[in-house]
Amino acid sequence: MKKGKIEPRTLSGFMELMPGPQLQFDRICETMRDIYGLYGYYPLDTPILESSEVLLAKAGGETEKQVYRFNKGDADITMRFDLTVPLAKFVAKNYGGLTFPFKRYQIGKVYRGEKSQKGRFREFYQSDIDIIGDGELNVINDAEIPAIIYNVFTRLGLEDFTIRLNNRRLLSGFWCMLNLEDKAGGIMRAIDKLEKMPREKIIGELEELGIDTGKCEKILDFAGIKGTNGEIISQLEELAKDGGETFKEGLRQLALVVKYIDAFHVPEKNYKIDLSIARGLDYYTGTVYETTFNKHPEIGSICSGGRYDNLAEFYTNKKLPGVGISIGLTRLFYILNEMEYLNGSALAPADVLVIPMTGDMPHAISISERLRGEGIKCQIYFEEKKFKAKIGYADKLDVPFAFFIGEDEIAKNEVSFKDMQSGEQVSAPLDDAVAAVKKSLSQRSEATVIDTEKTNR
Amino acid sequence: MKKGKIEPRTLSGFMELMPGPQLQFDRICETMRDIYGLYGYYPLDTPILESSEVLLAKAGGETEKQVYRFNKGDADITMRFDLTVPLAKFVAKNYGGLTFPFKRYQIGKVYRGEKSQKGRFREFYQSDIDIIGDGELNVINDAEIPAIIYNVFTRLGLEDFTIRLNNRRLLSGFWCMLNLEDKAGGIMRAIDKLEKMPREKIIGELEELGIDTGKCEKILDFAGIKGTNGEIISQLEELAKDGGETFKEGLRQLALVVKYIDAFHVPEKNYKIDLSIARGLDYYTGTVYETTFNKHPEIGSICSGGRYDNLAEFYTNKKLPGVGISIGLTRLFYILNEMEYLNGSALAPADVLVIPMTGDMPHAISISERLRGEGIKCQIYFEEKKFKAKIGYADKLDVPFAFFIGEDEIAKNEVSFKDMQSGEQVSAPLDDAVAAVKKSLSQRSEATVIDTEKTNR
Repeated sequence: MKKGKIEPRTLSGFMELMPGPQLQFDRICETMRDIYGLYGYYPLDTPILESSEVLLAKAGGETEKQVYRFNKGDADITMRFDLTVPLAKFVAKNYGGLTFPFKRYQIGKVYRGEKSQKGRFREFYQSDIDIIGDGELNVINDAEIPAIIYNVFTRLGLEDFTIRLNNRRLLSGFWCMLNLEDKAGGIMRAIDKLEKMPREKIIGELEELGIDTGKCEKILDFAGIKGTNGEIISQLEELAKDGGETFKEGLRQLALVVKYIDAFHVPEKNYKIDLSIARGLDYYTGTVYETTFNKHPEIGSICSGGRYDNLAEFYTNKKLPGVGISIGLTRLFYILNEMEYLNGSALAPADVLVIPMTGDMPHAISISERLRGEGIKCQIYFEEKKFKAKIGYADKLDVPFAFFIGEDEIAKNEVSFKDMQSGEQVSAPLDDAVAAVKKSLSQRSEATVIDTEKTNR
Repeated sequence: MKKGKIEPRTLSGFMELMPGPQLQFDRICETMRDIYGLYGYYPLDTPILESSEVLLAKAGGETEKQVYRFNKGDADITMRFDLTVPLAKFVAKNYGGLTFPFKRYQIGKVYRGEKSQKGRFREFYQSDIDIIGDGELNVINDAEIPAIIYNVFTRLGLEDFTIRLNNRRLLSGFWCMLNLEDKAGGIMRAIDKLEKMPREKIIGELEELGIDTGKCEKILDFAGIKGTNGEIISQLEELAKDGGETFKEGLRQLALVVKYIDAFHVPEKNYKIDLSIARGLDYYTGTVYETTFNKHPEIGSICSGGRYDNLAEFYTNKKLPGVGISIGLTRLFYILNEMEYLNGSALAPADVLVIPMTGDMPHAISISERLRGEGIKCQIYFEEKKFKAKIGYADKLDVPFAFFIGEDEIAKNEVSFKDMQSGEQVSAPLDDAVAAVKKSLSQRSEATVIDTEKTNR
């Protein structure tokens, strides 16, 4: 770097993708928008900056410490750290102008000044869907959320994942049966760690809460109930015979959600009841979700959420129950990339590079416009370079086809087109070339952004 | 507001759209992504936060005053105020890994703490396209940029706009012919105001620069040359006989750009040479663009840009010439909305609302999944409400179709579907209903986001 120049760097903890990977990232966003749209969800786009008073109404502890907060003029401003608080603000603010149930998605950047480490980002995308009711919201909505997630992941090419379900009311009901209702919070936080810690350590944590060993065993046995969804529900029905109303209501909800997920045609292999999912936050009151890669439990949940009774209690007295889920998109992309699960054939910005071999640019431009009219993504190479540089550009861009427009082609009103992968090159009238490219592209477009073969390996 | 609740407000100067308008905004973004993609541009997504040293390397004056800048830990951070400086940083940083010419688009939020006033935003979207060369970049690229803008606006439904072109070299060459090369900056800034100020005021401003009245008249006569593009070029060719090399080179470029815009099939009514466009910034060195609504010149340019010699001179010694343009998307949307140019028929989040009339939800869910499989956007109404509330929801969402699934329909394996606009309701097998909806939607999908009839009124 010569004197006087400033080093062009990007802040640590901020993902900035190169053009090819960015294309893949954008395809993932597009897939999400498509699926959320098919389910009739509205897009929402709230500001990244909000008044600190509004954004931190409910926050505290870790959140307060991590946020980006600053003053500008008289305003005390905080950058949003999730998409749920802005949603709560939006719904409370616009309550009279919205139609309920209000279904919205939001894909946007959020900010947390976490300690910088590999795979953790300070600026990251969340992709959220929520359904908000006015006063009440049918529990069947809790089945739609995992159905949407199932569709998103399968459309992306992921197959080997499990959406894990539980119900907080069921858990609370069970702690009640053990006369431990006053220790509910601590128990939830302890069993949340069940996948990451040995059983003895969890028991230790529970004992520290003042729970006797017998009850600790019962809690862990309960959280560890295994089987098909039907088998687990049968076992829970057995337990319910001695259970209270809370337990029975939780079980009723869980059984209903499982039944309706099936109605959405989600294959049983992609969702299962897991009684160890607690989602430590007090926020959730019913159904809770986590989603894991079957071969990589160590990554933890890539998509989590649940049912809540009161979206916006800090802003309004209106009771706004809802259910939602959030995908940590930047982290998910980082993981997919690290595992080399992404499809390497989705990195070209164009389907065709048109290479003029003469000075007759208008002819070449006209051909490129024709291709675009057919929906074919097309670049035209305008630079006056040697042939080697021109074809090198096509190679580096990884375009599937190059069209050469030379004197012969212009005279015969043809194009020479080269399949860059096979190396095969033929001359043909433009219509034939267009048809050949379209045929090839329709096969390629079926390629998912995640390479299913790699994930199943 | 009861005690203890915080008022859910949004910061002043921050656009936050209601769900219907947000759908329209997103359709505009989607159109832009589609068109930029057809021209083979890579998407780019740089962080919103950058090191102040990097982002403000070149800034000064108004920019420095307006930016959102703050400290977090040891970092001095600024929120990006445009998408050009982050592009410069990105290209300089990743020079070795990029293929040139590098074509990228970026649609993203930028931040300027301007004085809050109607139609001015502190957080707003810019939609930028740029082509960056390595050392050199053919002037034909300057014709592709307006061709893309033409395609974006026409695809959105706008017809009555003009992309206005000029060339800074031509202007500089003319000031040279008047021996005023040392006053170039001042003259450019003065004639930039030609549309907004009376001629006498501009002359006054020029005289203040120490230019005699005769030359002032010559400058204004030059800036005011009118005619078809061909006629203007003819007049410039006359002037070139007495002109220097700079003027001749500027004219050559301008004529070439005009010729190639035509090759891109842009109709002559949508672009014209306007010698009063100067784009005051020193940054531009050749072609410059502005775009105006023909019926609303008072709005000023909705899309501006030009050719520059050196994208990233603050970060690198590499010469990186480029050409680009920027649409102020949030402001454009605000204007389109204020003028009521937006198509009111694009406000529904779904094509169909499925309304179960019995408790047999799995049947209704199955029908909604079938519709989604056909690409039909579909919501299902799960709430246990009276019929009036259910149909009221369909009304408020403005969905084109409602499907009623009652006992009769389930028994006969049919659906009753209602065209919400005509009020017509028929019962038919699902396949027939799907076909009818698809036919109606294909007609609707041709509706542009801007209502062309309204803009032409």
